[in-house]
Amino acid sequence: MKEHTEVTIYDIAKKLNLATSTISRGLKDHHSISKKTIDKIKKTAAEMGYRPNNLAASLRSKKTKTIGVLVPTITQPFLSSLISGIEVTANKAGYNVVIMQSHDSYLEEVSLTKSLYSNRVSGVICSLAMETVDTNHFNLFIDANIPLVFVDRVPNSFNTFRVVIDNFESGYIATKHLISQGCKRIAHITAGSEYSIYNERKKGYLEALKEFNLPIEEELIIKVGGITYEEAEKASYKLLSLENRPDGIFAPGDILGVSAIQCAKKMRIKVPEELSVIGFNNDPISYIIDPNLSTITHPASKMGQTSAEIILKNLKPNKKKYEIKEMTFLKTEVLARESSDKKRLLNVNSSLKI
Amino acid sequence: MKEHTEVTIYDIAKKLNLATSTISRGLKDHHSISKKTIDKIKKTAAEMGYRPNNLAASLRSKKTKTIGVLVPTITQPFLSSLISGIEVTANKAGYNVVIMQSHDSYLEEVSLTKSLYSNRVSGVICSLAMETVDTNHFNLFIDANIPLVFVDRVPNSFNTFRVVIDNFESGYIATKHLISQGCKRIAHITAGSEYSIYNERKKGYLEALKEFNLPIEEELIIKVGGITYEEAEKASYKLLSLENRPDGIFAPGDILGVSAIQCAKKMRIKVPEELSVIGFNNDPISYIIDPNLSTITHPASKMGQTSAEIILKNLKPNKKKYEIKEMTFLKTEVLARESSDKKRLLNVNSSLKI
Repeated sequence: MKEHTEVTIYDIAKKLNLATSTISRGLKDHHSISKKTIDKIKKTAAEMGYRPNNLAASLRSKKTKTIGVLVPTITQPFLSSLISGIEVTANKAGYNVVIMQSHDSYLEEVSLTKSLYSNRVSGVICSLAMETVDTNHFNLFIDANIPLVFVDRVPNSFNTFRVVIDNFESGYIATKHLISQGCKRIAHITAGSEYSIYNERKKGYLEALKEFNLPIEEELIIKVGGITYEEAEKASYKLLSLENRPDGIFAPGDILGVSAIQCAKKMRIKVPEELSVIGFNNDPISYIIDPNLSTITHPASKMGQTSAEIILKNLKPNKKKYEIKEMTFLKTEVLARESSDKKRLLNVNSSLKI
Repeated sequence: MKEHTEVTIYDIAKKLNLATSTISRGLKDHHSISKKTIDKIKKTAAEMGYRPNNLAASLRSKKTKTIGVLVPTITQPFLSSLISGIEVTANKAGYNVVIMQSHDSYLEEVSLTKSLYSNRVSGVICSLAMETVDTNHFNLFIDANIPLVFVDRVPNSFNTFRVVIDNFESGYIATKHLISQGCKRIAHITAGSEYSIYNERKKGYLEALKEFNLPIEEELIIKVGGITYEEAEKASYKLLSLENRPDGIFAPGDILGVSAIQCAKKMRIKVPEELSVIGFNNDPISYIIDPNLSTITHPASKMGQTSAEIILKNLKPNKKKYEIKEMTFLKTEVLARESSDKKRLLNVNSSLKI
């Protein structure tokens, strides 16, 4: 049995009795070929089952038209929105998106960077694994002049593009929001290494307390092993069982914030009257929990879009190695909802008294 | 300035004064090469910055080691879990995953299938766009012997693999659950075309009503334009404003179910006492809403895993075109929570009376 062979431009040329160069140009809508001939070529190509050989083109350019995306997991709402933003932007420019998950493991991340490299992606967008401290495994992209963008969870220093929110500032405005609602004893849940986004958010929290002369107490700061409901519940229970209980919690993730509200409800502590809570990310769960969770907005999709745009702008092979310390900051905002709305309640109460 | 050129096995052979065939075998741990020589070859290759040329290998085999995934969107929790399942399985087998989003548009889906085809993916996993009725654009994979798996939203008939849940059965058990809780007048929200999973779920709903001699009334079935909170709120409001109000709602998606609960709360209709609700998918929002939403479990990650396994098993080039009507059904279950727990309340009430 004859094996099925691929239709080439030579076959089309033979069939139409035209030069292969005419076929090649016709398929690319070249101005030197008449509309009529272009139509004939395309019609014949379609009928014969011709498909352009992107692989051969990739081999010539030593690159695929692919952006590699390496993230801890794609199931977190924030990260799936980020990837969606990358995919839409890349796709418009004719680029594909390959996705890999490190599952927050340093070793998996190291192995996946090698895989992306061997697959000759045109560029790489990465959000670091929770475990990662040493980022030397990313140097292979820099050495090969493959544009690399770190996004959201980025290394503190690395010679490449970084797209982030200002985690310090975001932690600061979240805490200040609780202070503005009258909280005097604000607890904080933190996670990750000292290089993580969580540590930056914690620094912002500490700064706000200092500025307003509020107590910074060790018992009010709890570190969790991961952003899960189980860990969050344990942390919330510990905080809300303190003899001198906090009247506010800044939870740097919505799972943590939602858990704090659930825990308070179980312990019959009223939110926001006795406890105000603010989360982070504006995940769907934040507007489903009752009372709704105040949170910090996170421009996840925009972040993905911006990262992809940087990759696309920097695809041109650069003769000399690039020296980039470019940091792009995207804006976050306090989204005040019921869980921190002490003031409204105070107003209602005072109007009731009248 | 000399352009940076790629290190090849010839360069390594020259440096070590060995045959290129020895280098090639050594890099692949071939048994004919001694452990010592293999170590030397690998060390030198690493020092010289050699990377295997996956592209050249892809060109020889006319395939990339890539599975193309085409889904409506990756931001829906169910679909991001599905993709995560695909990614983990593919990655273990040394395959990459390319992701594309149709945004539920038929035209985008047609264009993206062409793009996957040109990129010579090894296999394709697709969940259809909401708009799609005609699936002829997938024939190009069948004609080229590229394994194709439809998952979750699949065509009613197509000569390839399909991985699904039994939507009819799931709609049936969801409705029967409400009946078992004492509901007598059960409403239903539906969506999509007559070929969609939603229509199957609706058929299951109708079947359960018939079996238990409950009224099937047009005013109790509302079709929404899309699975969004806005559409869901409008539909819930319409249902709950009926003169003869339903005492149960089967919502074939958790966004629809959560909205129904929120709408009932706004209208001061007690859930589950006056209205029982069951959703579908077991999304995170379903266990955050108060009262918790009963739902149908959806094996999303397992579905992704199964789909990827089918692709990997069917990668071997097949001389004759394949004839497959294989349908894999994954199990769903009723996950009873507070929103439909009328019985427990009845028991509590009767025990109170004693």
